[in-house]
Amino acid sequence: MMKRASTLPRHRRSPSPSPPRAPRTSAFLFDLDGTLVDSTYEHAITWRNAFRLAGVDAPTWKIHRQVGMSGGLLTQAVLREIGADLSPEIVERVKEIHTREYEKVVDEVHPLPGSKELLDHLTRLDIPWIIATSSRATSARRTLKKLGFTSLEVAVTRDDVERAKPDPDLFFAAARRLRVPIAGAMVVGDSVWDILAARRAGAFGVGLLTGGTSRDELERAGALRVYEDPADLLRHLHELGVRPLMSS
Amino acid sequence: MMKRASTLPRHRRSPSPSPPRAPRTSAFLFDLDGTLVDSTYEHAITWRNAFRLAGVDAPTWKIHRQVGMSGGLLTQAVLREIGADLSPEIVERVKEIHTREYEKVVDEVHPLPGSKELLDHLTRLDIPWIIATSSRATSARRTLKKLGFTSLEVAVTRDDVERAKPDPDLFFAAARRLRVPIAGAMVVGDSVWDILAARRAGAFGVGLLTGGTSRDELERAGALRVYEDPADLLRHLHELGVRPLMSS
Repeated sequence: MMKRASTLPRHRRSPSPSPPRAPRTSAFLFDLDGTLVDSTYEHAITWRNAFRLAGVDAPTWKIHRQVGMSGGLLTQAVLREIGADLSPEIVERVKEIHTREYEKVVDEVHPLPGSKELLDHLTRLDIPWIIATSSRATSARRTLKKLGFTSLEVAVTRDDVERAKPDPDLFFAAARRLRVPIAGAMVVGDSVWDILAARRAGAFGVGLLTGGTSRDELERAGALRVYEDPADLLRHLHELGVRPLMSS
Repeated sequence: MMKRASTLPRHRRSPSPSPPRAPRTSAFLFDLDGTLVDSTYEHAITWRNAFRLAGVDAPTWKIHRQVGMSGGLLTQAVLREIGADLSPEIVERVKEIHTREYEKVVDEVHPLPGSKELLDHLTRLDIPWIIATSSRATSARRTLKKLGFTSLEVAVTRDDVERAKPDPDLFFAAARRLRVPIAGAMVVGDSVWDILAARRAGAFGVGLLTGGTSRDELERAGALRVYEDPADLLRHLHELGVRPLMSS
């Protein structure tokens, strides 16, 4: 840290015009699918089925590991991994089929343990938070309803940015919306792509095991810390620089 | 290696009555679901739905990590993990519902890349192999059909043993059926429970990523080696002590 020239006597403790304080966690930026709602497995299976309807037999585990990227990147990544090739028109068709197939199972998607409690707790502590999702606004709206939100005010979506994860644009847009610096922000996500995008944005990535990605995979991607689920994160908020309301 | 007393002149190369040879890999014992066919994600979701119909909301990722155990152990493990309790009657009901729900999606389960080629290749090399599954015979029979097998001769099932994985009984039964020692056998599976059961049986565990369990989780469980899928294992058979036919 750089020393600043000061006219104050050294070692003077208090009163001080602006005592040095460790920067507080500025905000929480949450991924939605797989992080706040239990939808990763539904996405993996519906993407796999969409590929099959386009004549491509991709193993589910390979798709699972790409979930969390934008649909465009996911399809490209899966095709490259299995050495297949599809025309841009067919790729568009796969994305449409996935959206349609996912709609059929979206009713089976439940919130993950502690999601609502964690967001409510941050609100009570007056810590800014927002949801940043690679989903389009229309499907994000449907998912947000499961958490009790009827408007898109609490989220930035794929429609707000040019590029989705693992590009950092969504998190930049989220920090702008909250009017907080991205530097002190905690990005909470269940996929390696959340953690990579967080780091590229200059934020910290916090991993959850709720998407079926292992602790090791999230840590290797650079997660500051990994928790089981939103409830587990809520119990350990103090590890991320959040002080209880009483002692703040 | 122990030296044996010998009356032969030292350094004599050949002819020799029984030249010392490294023991060959005695046999391959394969898990079925998630290892030879792409069914782990279907099992995770149908188990989750079965729990829900019994009033228990368990996150999919926690169930996913138990898939590969017998149904009885899986239900107990999931309930313990989420701190829920169900009567033995309801547990039986959950298992029945899972079986019924899985039947509805079993048509969507495809063989994994290289499954058939790997088994055919071992057959050509005259290396004994068998399938050892925690499934009941009735559902194993349906899954085996996807690999082109119309009889249960190629498999030992839950019905052949008292306890399924992670207990080692299935692999003991498999080795007995093949009339090979369990000690040199390679157990190939996609879950941590396959690897643990292999080690408890005194065999080697070989992990595949096809069930969505990470390389790290499989290695920590003690896998001798981890491959992507059956096709990747086939390309690396020489790493497991299998010599090509020409030079054997």
